[in-house]
Amino acid sequence: MGSPDQQDNSNIDDYGQNLKILPPNDQIRELQTILRDRNTTRSDFKFYADRLIRLVIEESLNQLPFSKCEVVTPTGAVYEGLKYGSGNCGVSIVRSGEAMEQGLRDCCRSIRIGKILVESDADTHEARVVYARFPDDIGQRQVLLMYPIMSTGNTVQQAVAVLKEHGVREESIILSNLFCTPAAARIVVNSFPKMKILTSELHPVAPNHFGQKYFGTD
Amino acid sequence: MGSPDQQDNSNIDDYGQNLKILPPNDQIRELQTILRDRNTTRSDFKFYADRLIRLVIEESLNQLPFSKCEVVTPTGAVYEGLKYGSGNCGVSIVRSGEAMEQGLRDCCRSIRIGKILVESDADTHEARVVYARFPDDIGQRQVLLMYPIMSTGNTVQQAVAVLKEHGVREESIILSNLFCTPAAARIVVNSFPKMKILTSELHPVAPNHFGQKYFGTD
Amino acid sequence: MGSPDQQDNSNIDDYGQNLKILPPNDQIRELQTILRDRNTTRSDFKFYADRLIRLVIEESLNQLPFSKCEVVTPTGAVYEGLKYGSGNCGVSIVRSGEAMEQGLRDCCRSIRIGKILVESDADTHEARVVYARFPDDIGQRQVLLMYPIMSTGNTVQQAVAVLKEHGVREESIILSNLFCTPAAARIVVNSFPKMKILTSELHPVAPNHFGQKYFGTD
Amino acid sequence: MGSPDQQDNSNIDDYGQNLKILPPNDQIRELQTILRDRNTTRSDFKFYADRLIRLVIEESLNQLPFSKCEVVTPTGAVYEGLKYGSGNCGVSIVRSGEAMEQGLRDCCRSIRIGKILVESDADTHEARVVYARFPDDIGQRQVLLMYPIMSTGNTVQQAVAVLKEHGVREESIILSNLFCTPAAARIVVNSFPKMKILTSELHPVAPNHFGQKYFGTD
Repeated sequence: MGSPDQQDNSNIDDYGQNLKILPPNDQIRELQTILRDRNTTRSDFKFYADRLIRLVIEESLNQLPFSKCEVVTPTGAVYEGLKYGSGNCGVSIVRSGEAMEQGLRDCCRSIRIGKILVESDADTHEARVVYARFPDDIGQRQVLLMYPIMSTGNTVQQAVAVLKEHGVREESIILSNLFCTPAAARIVVNSFPKMKILTSELHPVAPNHFGQKYFGTD
Repeated sequence: MGSPDQQDNSNIDDYGQNLKILPPNDQIRELQTILRDRNTTRSDFKFYADRLIRLVIEESLNQLPFSKCEVVTPTGAVYEGLKYGSGNCGVSIVRSGEAMEQGLRDCCRSIRIGKILVESDADTHEARVVYARFPDDIGQRQVLLMYPIMSTGNTVQQAVAVLKEHGVREESIILSNLFCTPAAARIVVNSFPKMKILTSELHPVAPNHFGQKYFGTD
Repeated sequence: MGSPDQQDNSNIDDYGQNLKILPPNDQIRELQTILRDRNTTRSDFKFYADRLIRLVIEESLNQLPFSKCEVVTPTGAVYEGLKYGSGNCGVSIVRSGEAMEQGLRDCCRSIRIGKILVESDADTHEARVVYARFPDDIGQRQVLLMYPIMSTGNTVQQAVAVLKEHGVREESIILSNLFCTPAAARIVVNSFPKMKILTSELHPVAPNHFGQKYFGTD
Repeated sequence: MGSPDQQDNSNIDDYGQNLKILPPNDQIRELQTILRDRNTTRSDFKFYADRLIRLVIEESLNQLPFSKCEVVTPTGAVYEGLKYGSGNCGVSIVRSGEAMEQGLRDCCRSIRIGKILVESDADTHEARVVYARFPDDIGQRQVLLMYPIMSTGNTVQQAVAVLKEHGVREESIILSNLFCTPAAARIVVNSFPKMKILTSELHPVAPNHFGQKYFGTD
């Protein structure tokens, strides 16, 4: 685990151009290490998870449409800059996705944040949506869908299906993720080829204890 | 101002390999635009400055020495990761550098943060240090020196000189900066060729209203 | 609305000793005013809601059991102080209760936070629990139940019932609330006489737009 | 230390009506205990100091002038509330007072924050101001002066003198403090009888390690 031949980051091109991995650096690798380590305290886990989340959120926001603009500086000069388009919102998938809400607010102060609850049937393993709250005009918005751990991709598939039922265009969805297995990446990319996906690592083992450790509940 | 031919980012190689500029993207460009705009409210200014500060701090931390380590995951697998060396600290240059303290704490929970106050003589424009507080073993530490706006480089030169007087090695200093003029970059790089410098933009005009707007004081 | 004869704070004794209202002061009254005002921006609404939430949370934590302890100060003196009992946790009622999670974390860094989702039948108005996640030993814990707006008390009644089914003792529950109607107070106090309730205001009209404004969703 | 007969809170009337102590409760007593304990980690020290700071700041803000106002609620009702007067600012006394800046910002999003540096002569123990930055119209403002530990009162005396030189009226100053000795309280109250003072504890021993532990520097 963790050795180069087991990581799938190298052949990321297999997943198409809409799957993006944070440019790997020592810093991010250190955060991933802390989150993988079973000896990390809950307090540290939350602190370092929040850092990695902010980095993924920043990179996700970078996928949003921008346009050129001109502003005037305090000295009266004209500065040619960029500005966001308006009409973005966040949607977290309960429960682990909620861990990413604060990170999104740290970057976009008063962004609207909706939420989806998907549950799996204990027998059939079929996922189904039992709760959803969205901004009422979500069909006109760019949506940052937040879900930190993708093992199978099932939950995300249900969530995206619900978003599409609410009129959200597939190409308007950016999935913000921390850890993703190659299997989940393949399924999600194939199901929704126009959706953008941001993650920090493709690895055969996803840290499934994330939500439990972050929130301290079952 | 702001047109490609006026920016110096292209010929960054002139400054040697220790000056690094954040990889430019739409996101960072948007933050820079908001901070340049004279119509930005103080509340927004602080919010977006804090975001750009965190990005620069994250990249600065990435310059620190790391070493390989192995950790055990909750499932009992061994994960080959990275960990920081210990013995880092922050030093802010009063006043504008203090705006970066919270960003550093958002990334390094209980990092020690010292401070330097440099004042310029009204007549001679000579800078001199009037106050300094450091961790007592600062000579053995890596130092993140925080100063967001560099117009002339004078203040930073004084601050680095004081750090060196306290036994800090030049190669152990990482200067975290938001906006830098080419003139300041040249002076600082020439004076301290072994110090690393991180900035988000090289531009002939530095937003000198930064401290005044961030803190709301003269 | 808002005139003294319409407020029920004066005859708070009618509700028994377990209902406590934050000691009213100018400050709290100002926060309540901002949250009531329909012209408050979403950004301000969230900021000032977070402040009022922290004050209610602080007062709620003050209801937890403490014990005497002795600590040694840096000068070697013995200081007779107090410490919390361990074994607390938070539970938020989805959706509006989730607005109080960050405030709880601001006071108790790594406290475990569970969650309950109660939905009302559109026809019968009957409330039922559709989702719950708790720390596995919640029956042994003091529980801070978070729900900011109480109009009828129905949702809280369902939530408390579920907690009791999980073995939580009624006297171990502290309900943290911002705005409460006299009707809801009466119902909840009568149903659960041993539960403690903290609120900032008893008023016939509860600001039911809270969740919608805080999160920006329906 | 810590026994009732050694605390001066009981005869607080000796200090006049402008010295106010936070209403003591278990919660605050627990925070004071953690901050007094020499075994508290730096990370915990900062976290719990920040909590006590916010409580003192909230109570300090409560001393500011308010006026009645009417707002309209989302349902169209008129609500009789309160609003702050405008024209407040914060001033921190370097270094320990700077620990209170974030707490002030957590309550007043874009309040202007000035700063004073007072140094004591190593031989004569005389305090003198070596640096000050204020909002330019500070004479027209209410000023929250932040300084967490008062042992002798010398530093605060210098700081208040400078504020008065800048045209601030004594009755417009609110001193926010965490720990105060009876001796310091007496001197400051006598010197500035019209200034309001907020603290969390009057105790013969002030925790002078505060700044060192909070910032991790000498």
